[in-house]
Amino acid sequence: MSDGTADIGVIGMGVMGANLALNIAEKGFKVAVQNRTPEKAFAVRDDNPDLAENVLPAESLEDFVKSLKTPRAVIFMVPAGQPVDDEMKKIAPLLEAGDVMVDAGNADFNDTVRRSKAVEGTGLKFVGMGVSGGELGARHGPSIMVGGAKETYPLIEPVLTKISAKFKDEPCVAWLGPDGAGHFVKTIHNGIEYADMQMIAEIYGIMRDGLKLEPAKMAEIFRGWNGRELASYLIEITAVNLDEKDPETGKPMVEVIVDEAGQKGTGRWAVIEAEKLGVGATTLEAAVAARGLSSRRSERADAARLYAGVEAGQTQFFADEAGLGELESALVTAKIIAYAQGYAAMAAASDEYGWNLPLGTIAEIWRAGCIIRSHFLDDIAKAYDKGQTVVNILQSPDFVGRVAKGQAALRRVVAKAALVCIPVPALSAALAYFDDYRRARGTANLIQAQRDLFGAHTFRRFDAEGAVHHQWPAV
Amino acid sequence: MSDGTADIGVIGMGVMGANLALNIAEKGFKVAVQNRTPEKAFAVRDDNPDLAENVLPAESLEDFVKSLKTPRAVIFMVPAGQPVDDEMKKIAPLLEAGDVMVDAGNADFNDTVRRSKAVEGTGLKFVGMGVSGGELGARHGPSIMVGGAKETYPLIEPVLTKISAKFKDEPCVAWLGPDGAGHFVKTIHNGIEYADMQMIAEIYGIMRDGLKLEPAKMAEIFRGWNGRELASYLIEITAVNLDEKDPETGKPMVEVIVDEAGQKGTGRWAVIEAEKLGVGATTLEAAVAARGLSSRRSERADAARLYAGVEAGQTQFFADEAGLGELESALVTAKIIAYAQGYAAMAAASDEYGWNLPLGTIAEIWRAGCIIRSHFLDDIAKAYDKGQTVVNILQSPDFVGRVAKGQAALRRVVAKAALVCIPVPALSAALAYFDDYRRARGTANLIQAQRDLFGAHTFRRFDAEGAVHHQWPAV
Repeated sequence: MSDGTADIGVIGMGVMGANLALNIAEKGFKVAVQNRTPEKAFAVRDDNPDLAENVLPAESLEDFVKSLKTPRAVIFMVPAGQPVDDEMKKIAPLLEAGDVMVDAGNADFNDTVRRSKAVEGTGLKFVGMGVSGGELGARHGPSIMVGGAKETYPLIEPVLTKISAKFKDEPCVAWLGPDGAGHFVKTIHNGIEYADMQMIAEIYGIMRDGLKLEPAKMAEIFRGWNGRELASYLIEITAVNLDEKDPETGKPMVEVIVDEAGQKGTGRWAVIEAEKLGVGATTLEAAVAARGLSSRRSERADAARLYAGVEAGQTQFFADEAGLGELESALVTAKIIAYAQGYAAMAAASDEYGWNLPLGTIAEIWRAGCIIRSHFLDDIAKAYDKGQTVVNILQSPDFVGRVAKGQAALRRVVAKAALVCIPVPALSAALAYFDDYRRARGTANLIQAQRDLFGAHTFRRFDAEGAVHHQWPAV
Repeated sequence: MSDGTADIGVIGMGVMGANLALNIAEKGFKVAVQNRTPEKAFAVRDDNPDLAENVLPAESLEDFVKSLKTPRAVIFMVPAGQPVDDEMKKIAPLLEAGDVMVDAGNADFNDTVRRSKAVEGTGLKFVGMGVSGGELGARHGPSIMVGGAKETYPLIEPVLTKISAKFKDEPCVAWLGPDGAGHFVKTIHNGIEYADMQMIAEIYGIMRDGLKLEPAKMAEIFRGWNGRELASYLIEITAVNLDEKDPETGKPMVEVIVDEAGQKGTGRWAVIEAEKLGVGATTLEAAVAARGLSSRRSERADAARLYAGVEAGQTQFFADEAGLGELESALVTAKIIAYAQGYAAMAAASDEYGWNLPLGTIAEIWRAGCIIRSHFLDDIAKAYDKGQTVVNILQSPDFVGRVAKGQAALRRVVAKAALVCIPVPALSAALAYFDDYRRARGTANLIQAQRDLFGAHTFRRFDAEGAVHHQWPAV
């Protein structure tokens, strides 16, 4: 038994950890805080006098553990990877059966599965929890995706419910499944975020290079879009990004920013995991690939010189109401397709790992707090909320009509972009996926014929059961 | 010391192993053969009386090892994964320092790296060797990609040189680098093979659904293409596949084959490894994804019904000389881009793992024996053969002119396919990659602005050094 008074503890007082602790304190809980260099933990208390009575910094890990009520709940907010294993190793001997360790970092879900297995039988509990929303989200309300033993969740649920983002009063937090389920869903979330951002960037490319619009004008257009189907945090901030002037040069801010996008690896993980599951999340892949290519800027500049003579075909984009409506509609449609791919990857993981993921709930807790929050996610939540099985978002009655209506615009935008030499890798991946997905009769019969010819891989016939091999003429 | 007379041994008498052993025997070497059920090893000798004197089946693993000259060379041709570890474990105690174990299966290169490490210090040698060309290739001349310690290679080089495919008398075998290098190159080879086959299938889709051509007519077109830039084994067999009539129904063979393509995982590995390296091999990804989607046939049929109302835009493909020339040119150009991506993945792996891969040699040994063999690979070999650094095939002087000329056709085919609802995921991925690759100024600046706004990820400015954060207006 412990004589502690803290409801929960946070280890790691980087910006994310400190903000999460302050969020907890603000909601009326007492939070113990600890850091490798204890000064940072004390600074979190001292720099926030209005919340100081709820923030309990500790000099040592021992003091930190003593300050917690039992059963103890300890959140790690340290860099992903080895640091999490290190912290677990240090604190485990100080904890008792029934205490729970929560990794709130951006863990590879495979590591979370491994760590969950490692604590089995020790009496300690392990939770892998994806937290989305960046620094501001951590401070004022993130979207939280929880994985771990279901019976462990009630221990941390009261705190998580209070600190999470709210969508129309509903908390954006849920237990999603065992061991790696929470971190897996966070991984796919980030893959979708990559696709969302890339598709917006592709539309921006059309506006800049196809329509020759000024950023301020683009901002106005995105603000308009934010009031309709595309309403979302990412569209909102895009307008802010485009409207902003550089205080130093007076130029539009986006024009002084180098076109090399960073990535922390979670988008890439999403693609790798989807591939392992046999789900081709091509729009997400295109987005990850585009970021990779963006980082090879000097190589691109060389290539630009080598292919300077390449000329556009005979078509053009228009910035009139119809032309801009086409772009908006294309983006909406491609977005639906990208989300359908992300959801297909989660459904496959749920089957593969026996998680029984609540796909509707996932949409619900993404509606606020996280980077991809949007009204659109509420539509997805509703599509799953009717007790019916959703094979794929593209087959949900709520979306079929929208996609059928919007696909023509996506089609025209992809075709025009191809002709006028503006790359739209994610938009065209979305369109190709849609057309391939809705083609009852594909072209894989030719691939099967080739494979049977060169490798006797066999094929199935339309008019018979079973796999057969054909004796092709010698080549 | 051993009193054996066999020059080399093969373990695993499946079709691939048996054919490889017969190939070795035919070239005048004595080959010891072994199988879990010894009867199969004896059958290989007894079923091939003309080669029987060179095939030495063994009753037991002990007899097999005794029958080999020292230092011994043992090739495993068993299913990838655990069976390889099992065979290594069984035979290692029977071998002596200096003997070499060769895994000729389709190994995950990560396993090959692990196995190479495991034998270090034991005196035994390990070689991971990719063998391409299917059953016929194994029997009459495959393309062989060797990874392992360089000093081990001479032990097996004489046999491999004789049994490999020949391109104008040059053997299609080479030592490519240490440990996993051979199997990694084989993995990328298979990823490229996937892309090649998918792009051909996409063109077939245009011919079938856009041009309404009969398979026999398509075969004629592919045969014509095989005499020009596209000359390759895959184009050749495509013509054979399309020309073939089903003996049972009299229908074109491809029309009775179900449009669900199988995959063994190596294409998927290629994509996963490229992703891990930060190289977006989008055309390969599109091909892997398309196979995955092909296997969900009933889901596609449902989607087809749901989107039955979707209509084509106002354009069409033409089957006249100009129209077919456009398809041919599009396929050539997309193929160059796909290979450029595969080569970029290998270059990145070479850097990452310190392999110093001979990229020109790889093209050389792919010119015969393997599935993707083509005249085109000779062009790649030549591009690397001039002592100059090839940053990317798309920047090689030998290819810039061809791509600049062909891209317009690719552009029109992608645009038309988008408008008439024919999915071309790999062709459009290739085009988008090309346009993104040759765009000196991309759109990742907007992504950087978004990331800095929501996560303070910082960005670089065109007019200053270092990473900076901007104070964006509150959202």
